[in-house]
Amino acid sequence: MIIVMKSQATEKQITDVINWIESVGYKAHPSSGVERTIIGAVGDNRDKAVLKYAESLPGVEKTMPILKPYKLASRESHQGDTIIPVGNLRIGGPEFIVMAGPCAIESEEQLLESAYIVKKGGGHMLRGGAFKPRTSPYSFQGMEEEGLKLLDAARKKTELPTVTEVVSPADVDLVESYADMLQIGARNVQNFALLKKVGQARKPVLLKRGMMTTIEELLMSAEYILSSGNPNVILCERGIRTFETATRNTLDISAVPVLKNLTHLPVVVDPSHAAGNYKYVIPLARAAVAVGADGIIVEVHPEPEKAVSDGAQSLKPEKYYQLMDDIRALAGALRSKAV
Amino acid sequence: MIIVMKSQATEKQITDVINWIESVGYKAHPSSGVERTIIGAVGDNRDKAVLKYAESLPGVEKTMPILKPYKLASRESHQGDTIIPVGNLRIGGPEFIVMAGPCAIESEEQLLESAYIVKKGGGHMLRGGAFKPRTSPYSFQGMEEEGLKLLDAARKKTELPTVTEVVSPADVDLVESYADMLQIGARNVQNFALLKKVGQARKPVLLKRGMMTTIEELLMSAEYILSSGNPNVILCERGIRTFETATRNTLDISAVPVLKNLTHLPVVVDPSHAAGNYKYVIPLARAAVAVGADGIIVEVHPEPEKAVSDGAQSLKPEKYYQLMDDIRALAGALRSKAV
Amino acid sequence: MIIVMKSQATEKQITDVINWIESVGYKAHPSSGVERTIIGAVGDNRDKAVLKYAESLPGVEKTMPILKPYKLASRESHQGDTIIPVGNLRIGGPEFIVMAGPCAIESEEQLLESAYIVKKGGGHMLRGGAFKPRTSPYSFQGMEEEGLKLLDAARKKTELPTVTEVVSPADVDLVESYADMLQIGARNVQNFALLKKVGQARKPVLLKRGMMTTIEELLMSAEYILSSGNPNVILCERGIRTFETATRNTLDISAVPVLKNLTHLPVVVDPSHAAGNYKYVIPLARAAVAVGADGIIVEVHPEPEKAVSDGAQSLKPEKYYQLMDDIRALAGALRSKAV
Amino acid sequence: MIIVMKSQATEKQITDVINWIESVGYKAHPSSGVERTIIGAVGDNRDKAVLKYAESLPGVEKTMPILKPYKLASRESHQGDTIIPVGNLRIGGPEFIVMAGPCAIESEEQLLESAYIVKKGGGHMLRGGAFKPRTSPYSFQGMEEEGLKLLDAARKKTELPTVTEVVSPADVDLVESYADMLQIGARNVQNFALLKKVGQARKPVLLKRGMMTTIEELLMSAEYILSSGNPNVILCERGIRTFETATRNTLDISAVPVLKNLTHLPVVVDPSHAAGNYKYVIPLARAAVAVGADGIIVEVHPEPEKAVSDGAQSLKPEKYYQLMDDIRALAGALRSKAV
Repeated sequence: MIIVMKSQATEKQITDVINWIESVGYKAHPSSGVERTIIGAVGDNRDKAVLKYAESLPGVEKTMPILKPYKLASRESHQGDTIIPVGNLRIGGPEFIVMAGPCAIESEEQLLESAYIVKKGGGHMLRGGAFKPRTSPYSFQGMEEEGLKLLDAARKKTELPTVTEVVSPADVDLVESYADMLQIGARNVQNFALLKKVGQARKPVLLKRGMMTTIEELLMSAEYILSSGNPNVILCERGIRTFETATRNTLDISAVPVLKNLTHLPVVVDPSHAAGNYKYVIPLARAAVAVGADGIIVEVHPEPEKAVSDGAQSLKPEKYYQLMDDIRALAGALRSKAV
Repeated sequence: MIIVMKSQATEKQITDVINWIESVGYKAHPSSGVERTIIGAVGDNRDKAVLKYAESLPGVEKTMPILKPYKLASRESHQGDTIIPVGNLRIGGPEFIVMAGPCAIESEEQLLESAYIVKKGGGHMLRGGAFKPRTSPYSFQGMEEEGLKLLDAARKKTELPTVTEVVSPADVDLVESYADMLQIGARNVQNFALLKKVGQARKPVLLKRGMMTTIEELLMSAEYILSSGNPNVILCERGIRTFETATRNTLDISAVPVLKNLTHLPVVVDPSHAAGNYKYVIPLARAAVAVGADGIIVEVHPEPEKAVSDGAQSLKPEKYYQLMDDIRALAGALRSKAV
Repeated sequence: MIIVMKSQATEKQITDVINWIESVGYKAHPSSGVERTIIGAVGDNRDKAVLKYAESLPGVEKTMPILKPYKLASRESHQGDTIIPVGNLRIGGPEFIVMAGPCAIESEEQLLESAYIVKKGGGHMLRGGAFKPRTSPYSFQGMEEEGLKLLDAARKKTELPTVTEVVSPADVDLVESYADMLQIGARNVQNFALLKKVGQARKPVLLKRGMMTTIEELLMSAEYILSSGNPNVILCERGIRTFETATRNTLDISAVPVLKNLTHLPVVVDPSHAAGNYKYVIPLARAAVAVGADGIIVEVHPEPEKAVSDGAQSLKPEKYYQLMDDIRALAGALRSKAV
Repeated sequence: MIIVMKSQATEKQITDVINWIESVGYKAHPSSGVERTIIGAVGDNRDKAVLKYAESLPGVEKTMPILKPYKLASRESHQGDTIIPVGNLRIGGPEFIVMAGPCAIESEEQLLESAYIVKKGGGHMLRGGAFKPRTSPYSFQGMEEEGLKLLDAARKKTELPTVTEVVSPADVDLVESYADMLQIGARNVQNFALLKKVGQARKPVLLKRGMMTTIEELLMSAEYILSSGNPNVILCERGIRTFETATRNTLDISAVPVLKNLTHLPVVVDPSHAAGNYKYVIPLARAAVAVGADGIIVEVHPEPEKAVSDGAQSLKPEKYYQLMDDIRALAGALRSKAV
């Protein structure tokens, strides 16, 4: 942490800040510039929250943190890429992974039909929600355990590994007993009780960025899971909330190379929730390949016009097949490129 | 829901949209303007998610929702102001309510000292966190039940009713057994499992707006609690996330009159978390009085320089007393005003 | 500027950065912490843009500016409050200043009637636009010089000083010849050619914050005017653009105390443009008084239902009189307060 | 425009709104639903600003615009893609166009060297700023006409058409006499005096989206140029301002397919200003190809470590050559795709 003094700070104010830094267990390294003094506060403790109080001391202009607040998630602590096995798949390796399926599991027929479409197009994993976090209490809340059973049956028939959302700590064991990967949704990205609980699970976790979560906060949420004992976390950029309303959210495509620079964890993109409209899903998925993501998670539905949720952003089968062709073409073109 | 057709939409496209609307259970009311046709979709169902799919139909330009998605929270369904009793207090009535105390409960001495300061200054309720949702897994996570016991003891000594945060559905019964009001924090505003659970509690709920939550979404989250059976919800504006970094968050002071217009529920303001710096807390709290809020929740600490969390934004006792003087002066000046 | 090295940076990388800093004319002050080295770059030059390149050097993690980039606008360079005379008025002194009038000057009758209302209510200055920056080329663009003449006539009849917007460098001399204060609108806050030109004018400038301008950028824009020779700049917070759409913009009420802390220039608030709806103008104007602003600029129209622009956010006369009563009551209550 | 009445609106209130609509020159089309009445206001006038006042009438809940406010820029008025000739180039056609060069023109040597690099890598146009809009008045403001002469000389030697920024209406004729395309920068996107002036120029205009500008507002700014007589406008997405600070701005990659859907004008991407760091420029440029943009504008500098501005985000020659290889590979892979 660096503490920047005001240009008019007195000697006594500087000394008082130094003494205060040492009273809370850090060492103070003052340094005088042309216009003002800055003081480094050095210590082992990663929780620097207490130092922020320095902003209230007389003569202090501001404080600036130096260290990254996450450790296990950082590329400094783990230089190579983490590759996460899910059945025979390897997420984070050379292959671009496509997770596809309906927003919500609605019936055995709907889910199975979706799964066969995913498989036929060349997708690698089946997605489908059994517990649905909905903005309205009056919206369909999911088939719950009944849906998990259908997901399990679809996996057995198609051999596609599955990913599904969990919304409450009390449900983690149940969901883990059916699915191959646990999804934490955007609205739960800072539900720390839930993060700690999936940190104790043995299945990998797909952690979605919240729509108002910074990249640093996303990595802190990953740190909750990693530090609770689960090393298998996949990060997912799904659009952030901005002033622009032409799309449901604004896909922060830059987050992919930024995350690749900061962390060793795999990064995937969800173009469906970002766009909110099927028309923009294919271009955004192509951008995800080109920008260097490890995969996408995309909504596909046999009959979007009958979907109970997210119909407007779900791809029909023929659009999904077209997307898979595009992905293969782009991934092929980039194969020999240094990314 | 209104469905706006493109200006070049054909007769057949218009007929197809009308047929589709009726196939999903709504009545279609088409209306032709100079440049294009618009079609109203009318029905009883409050969950209009399925209608959004119309945006994918040929010839459709966009859909626009007409109805508010919340009902119990709306002023249309309940014209008068809801006044919520907490012990002898009445939140939402003519009195401006001050909830004050430390961010986190740290020790018996720290909490008791805080409580006596709050009481001496004329505050009405004691706040203090026993379960702390922290961005970093390495930060202090709260004293948990031990902290709740200290809170209970402080209430007994000072007769101040208490409010404290609950972060997991599994803890709701425990927290309710000690506290007079349950707080849902900003990061849990769309933790629907938690909202449903506090909706079954008998104590009032202080629901904080998330930093990424629209006013409409905040009211939808209140609707979760109300529709689960708990009629006593107090809304709290605590700053939203914007591009401006001079303050921790941007206090959306306009949210107070907007909410007063849309809902019958009481609205309070948290100037401490919005500002992130004690220097701005008093002016923002004064603005909260003047804008027409029903109260504030503010962080006060006997020794902010030793606080384990939020020291920089906590008021020292003398500043808190000054704030209470200001509040009394402003509330007095406004007493005879139509708000 | 501080340059933070990566934790794995080599000795050679550190030396290379030090050499580079000195090659571009700064002195390097390295300092080694437990985990990494940081290097201060110290020099006289206020334009540190060139140093930002250090982020591209091997081994560098990030750069952090220390100095404020503005000088004349800063409270460090000018500790007391600047008080700006406009005729007999003093903006920035103990009196709370109300500038009021219609959005656009539409006719002699409309402007004069507005001016008499402003005067009757106790307002201090008359506002009214002759050059209107409109989002649409098909909207009314203002009466231009004809409007300026009407404004001048209204001033003569009511003795209210006037403020009006200028949108192009070529018009500055013309507008200055009629008005008492020049307004730079939100969309022109970084129109540097215009800022330089009003910096050469002799009349005071009301500089509105852009809807996406940071507080620091607003002060940099003020610095353009001040450094061009005009010392009389009044800053105006008028709402920023955020994800919230319930109001036209989000009034950043915290900007007032933040600016008061950073600069000696007066700060006023425009509640009309922030709210976009007359219903919220009075509460927001009251909040402006309570938070410590030096004044407001507010839209008043004798017949808002006939206004060619901004009718929805204009106050009718009786609402304006009520607002003025509220302002007097609040300002009276705060008179003896340390703000 | 649709006017939504409150559910409790009285018959008289509905009648009053209908009468008011007709008093301001529109026809009223009321329609009663289950819960409330909505009223369409139909008319020829594209400036519906006056109708917004309806929100202030008793019994009205809100107003909702139906028509797009732009006409010449819309795909409804011009279904095919506009292809803009610049010398032998065609922008908006099948070829992906690369405009490259330094941020600022600094010297004859620097510009010429840059131009030869651009040409050698296969770039199509040379960019370089002679008038620089800088946040700080103390930063380098550009070589002005001297820089334009160097740009002209570089064009003659390399035969690359040129694009350069104009910042003031008074400079438009001068800049047009030297450059092949006029650039309007992000901060001037709503400088309407400047837009009208370049609307009278004969050279094409590259219009950059402001960091606070919605897609609709960008199209309205294009409408200013088109309606002033210049049909050749190229839109440029260059990042918007959000809460995320890991990149300088957030590249809104979705804006490309959204704009392609709404307008016939070509759309290019500026990955350099969005990223603010050279490390992210190549991935973002690749995403621009994959998402369907018509080109990019990118900063290249022979020696970024000596650049007077934007050094950190400029590509070195070898990185630029690598980028051009990537672009050719991706564009090739997409050639046979329906975009």
